Amino acid sequence: MAKEGEQGSFHAKDYVDPPPAPLIDAAELKKWSFYRALIAEFIATLLFLYITVLTAIGYNSQVNTSSDACAGVGILGIAWAFGGMIFILVYCTAGISGGHINPAVTFGLLVARKVSLIRAVSYMVAQCLGAICGVGLVKALQKSYYNRYGGGANVVADGYSTGTGLGAEIIGTFVLVYTVFSATDPKRNARDSHVPVLAPLPIGFAVFMVHLATIPITGTGINPARSFGAAVIYDKKAAWDDHWIFWVGPMVGALIAAFYHQFILRAGAVKALGSFRSQTHV
Amino acid sequence: MAKEGEQGSFHAKDYVDPPPAPLIDAAELKKWSFYRALIAEFIATLLFLYITVLTAIGYNSQVNTSSDACAGVGILGIAWAFGGMIFILVYCTAGISGGHINPAVTFGLLVARKVSLIRAVSYMVAQCLGAICGVGLVKALQKSYYNRYGGGANVVADGYSTGTGLGAEIIGTFVLVYTVFSATDPKRNARDSHVPVLAPLPIGFAVFMVHLATIPITGTGINPARSFGAAVIYDKKAAWDDHWIFWVGPMVGALIAAFYHQFILRAGAVKALGSFRSQTHV
Amino acid sequence: MAKEGEQGSFHAKDYVDPPPAPLIDAAELKKWSFYRALIAEFIATLLFLYITVLTAIGYNSQVNTSSDACAGVGILGIAWAFGGMIFILVYCTAGISGGHINPAVTFGLLVARKVSLIRAVSYMVAQCLGAICGVGLVKALQKSYYNRYGGGANVVADGYSTGTGLGAEIIGTFVLVYTVFSATDPKRNARDSHVPVLAPLPIGFAVFMVHLATIPITGTGINPARSFGAAVIYDKKAAWDDHWIFWVGPMVGALIAAFYHQFILRAGAVKALGSFRSQTHV
Amino acid sequence: MAKEGEQGSFHAKDYVDPPPAPLIDAAELKKWSFYRALIAEFIATLLFLYITVLTAIGYNSQVNTSSDACAGVGILGIAWAFGGMIFILVYCTAGISGGHINPAVTFGLLVARKVSLIRAVSYMVAQCLGAICGVGLVKALQKSYYNRYGGGANVVADGYSTGTGLGAEIIGTFVLVYTVFSATDPKRNARDSHVPVLAPLPIGFAVFMVHLATIPITGTGINPARSFGAAVIYDKKAAWDDHWIFWVGPMVGALIAAFYHQFILRAGAVKALGSFRSQTHV
Repeated sequence: MAKEGEQGSFHAKDYVDPPPAPLIDAAELKKWSFYRALIAEFIATLLFLYITVLTAIGYNSQVNTSSDACAGVGILGIAWAFGGMIFILVYCTAGISGGHINPAVTFGLLVARKVSLIRAVSYMVAQCLGAICGVGLVKALQKSYYNRYGGGANVVADGYSTGTGLGAEIIGTFVLVYTVFSATDPKRNARDSHVPVLAPLPIGFAVFMVHLATIPITGTGINPARSFGAAVIYDKKAAWDDHWIFWVGPMVGALIAAFYHQFILRAGAVKALGSFRSQTHV
Repeated sequence: MAKEGEQGSFHAKDYVDPPPAPLIDAAELKKWSFYRALIAEFIATLLFLYITVLTAIGYNSQVNTSSDACAGVGILGIAWAFGGMIFILVYCTAGISGGHINPAVTFGLLVARKVSLIRAVSYMVAQCLGAICGVGLVKALQKSYYNRYGGGANVVADGYSTGTGLGAEIIGTFVLVYTVFSATDPKRNARDSHVPVLAPLPIGFAVFMVHLATIPITGTGINPARSFGAAVIYDKKAAWDDHWIFWVGPMVGALIAAFYHQFILRAGAVKALGSFRSQTHV
Repeated sequence: MAKEGEQGSFHAKDYVDPPPAPLIDAAELKKWSFYRALIAEFIATLLFLYITVLTAIGYNSQVNTSSDACAGVGILGIAWAFGGMIFILVYCTAGISGGHINPAVTFGLLVARKVSLIRAVSYMVAQCLGAICGVGLVKALQKSYYNRYGGGANVVADGYSTGTGLGAEIIGTFVLVYTVFSATDPKRNARDSHVPVLAPLPIGFAVFMVHLATIPITGTGINPARSFGAAVIYDKKAAWDDHWIFWVGPMVGALIAAFYHQFILRAGAVKALGSFRSQTHV
Repeated sequence: MAKEGEQGSFHAKDYVDPPPAPLIDAAELKKWSFYRALIAEFIATLLFLYITVLTAIGYNSQVNTSSDACAGVGILGIAWAFGGMIFILVYCTAGISGGHINPAVTFGLLVARKVSLIRAVSYMVAQCLGAICGVGLVKALQKSYYNRYGGGANVVADGYSTGTGLGAEIIGTFVLVYTVFSATDPKRNARDSHVPVLAPLPIGFAVFMVHLATIPITGTGINPARSFGAAVIYDKKAAWDDHWIFWVGPMVGALIAAFYHQFILRAGAVKALGSFRSQTHV
């Protein structure tokens, strides 16, 4: 909430946009850091699903078996589990893999040419495998409760149409990926000394917020790996019938967010057309 | 909670108050950055209303249809939705538009001569349009529940007078706008190395706090765009009858906060009178 | 949780402990900044009591009048209100008055010679007046509910002895004032680059934590101005009978925290005795 | 969620890994700072157990004695108490003792050669003594409620096997110690300017998250001192029968986390083998 007038005082040249990532970067495949990043994405997604699905199952089992109706953590607690885990996992893996932990985020960064195609595909595979293992661990620990309480799978709730579920996933993922782009914008560090570089905290909060709003509608996906891992382990028809929503919705949301950030906020479109020159002063 | 004695060690001249913003700055209208800021305010207010009203409606529908009385996120969860969204949206748009997302904040910054009149009016229009679209999206997704559960509209609750509602709005907006001024004070960066520049986090918390306190009284406005958007889409007499409270209250609160910060805390009045010279040493 | 081995790399002389504050500093009384600090303490304590007591009263009224037993924010929400308000108010007033907002904090800083006696007494008066006005505002807004739901006054709950209440206040205030000393230690900035200077956030969390633990015992004072303001406005015998606990407990807790920080952690006692020389290397 | 491509721009030599801590460092024993660190660990663990167990007991007593079934802070509030206390205590003691407050964290840092053996053992003793005193204080304040509501002791809940409890402790401690290593990595400061050094906040959140997920299973240990202190004061057969789980689980989890961070993420194994050279460029 700073006034924009302050922004004129920086030097227009004190940051450099890195060049677009190549689509195919074969040199990456020879670096240990590439495989280390895949391991970090795998472990982070595993831990993400393990903690969050365990929280959701534990909540449902308690509500139904305890004499105390208010014993569980509630939807608020489940939303905190999703948001809080993303906060700490992005914090922990940002320096290793960039901290995606979500195929929709990886897809958004691919569209914006921030990661190579080969890296994006490898990340998505690692994320999906990690999610399957994470939910599998929950099932191993909670055998009897796991299936009884829905297995953490994403389905469109009764009373909502498929279109509503798809819309909720698109806008929810837009909120997340828009926050990711804003929080990690390289222009930001150079220009806004009054906005601290706390990237993982707003990203975690974005996940928390979207869960508060859409758990009643779809259980909140906004992360295809999360939905896929739960569907594979739960493996009931209901989970698979709606499953496409949790890939199409997040990918469309990420695409719109990448477009909004790169073409509107970063003025990429305008810069390309050359019709405005003022953005270099702002 | 640092001792004030430390504050004498900075150089009185190491920050410069920017000059007051002009009332009419025609040059702004020729910059892409101006229109980009309007788009950012529009989208941010849209997302703010979408997530928060969806949370409120989803909570009400769950409380009434679920067998589990404690299933929903509760007023605590709704308060988090409002505060958390402001945190992430201020974080994301601070570098683009200043991150107002609230006509009362824009009005406070106009009074303090931090933004031009033309920018302030344009922001307010963008915020109101964004709010209408955000609530409209919720209605589109939640057709049946939307009207049944009050549509997120602000009304003075039964048992409270109009004066109580107005007072709650004035003081609540004062808390928010006072936090905005304190957190973005340009003098702050120069002087207080022990106070980190986390501006969006305390601003988001201020919104969270005010919602905890005043949801039972008015549903908490403190943001005329939020109240206006909900009133337009809900469009019931009850929402319109009290609607003036949610413009007059926030504007008065913002005015008092601007006065308090500029004339008392920044000692503008004293400086103008020339009767005290010590403030340059403090 | 950093390893201590890193700490040897700083220069022992890169910070300077400021000299102890004088007990009587008449020059302060001639500065506008002194009166501005009193105003800031008054307004901050007013807002603190207004938001927190309004939250507590609103919660109680809702639980009792609503058909939904889980409608209110709960003790968790009340604890958030206290902790969150301290976070934002310390953030906002740290640069103006040091952000005490609590006579126990002021007393602890006086004992540690961080503020002068004259400033300490003036702050405490401003804080108590602010608290009275804040609770008065709540009563004005919530006439019928205010007295019915206990007026936010601190009393030892049924089933607990006076000694238990006193003990809870002493340890609770110790947690708060110990956090204040740790977070604002001038040695910290010089030495620990891995510990960020987020002072207001842990201070707010300390208040949040103590409320979670001791609301069931005393309603949680740990701030004599807060207890005094509520007792004056509520003005029932029950609130006055236990009132001494909420002055003696916090002052004793603050005294122990000041002693612990200055003599044990900062090794003041040892330094004075000259028996260890190593602390300048650590 | 930053793109990895940015990471190539730092100088590979701008940080230095400190040498491994010696196993036995007799010189430490002559420093006041060593004993000060032990006192800080003792007090921090005491405060940690005091606040958290008091919150848990207070919650249980309220649920059972209050007419309002939702009066208490809930499992969500208990999880906040554990996570929030770790946040503020790590913040406060990081500069004094490194802020371990947990034998599993100390063990992980010992395995990674970040602290000496003599320091590690002394810390663990101080932590266990502090935990006993903290729980003892709760029992002293809450005599009648303490035993009735389980005394904060960790036991495997009905319906879960010993193996499930052990698994939950191992993975939970892995999440915590992995976060500790990531947040305090000396390489981090040198390389990742976009990731802020907020170490205590993600560490506190990791504790919060694990409690949300595993309170229904074991009450959540992930800290042998916490489990030991509660077992000593509660001293019932049930608490002692399962007690080994709360030492073996956390120690195994910490061991795996130390291995994962040092050998996989920091590529220690690879570096030792000399088979990859690229990590110095990444």
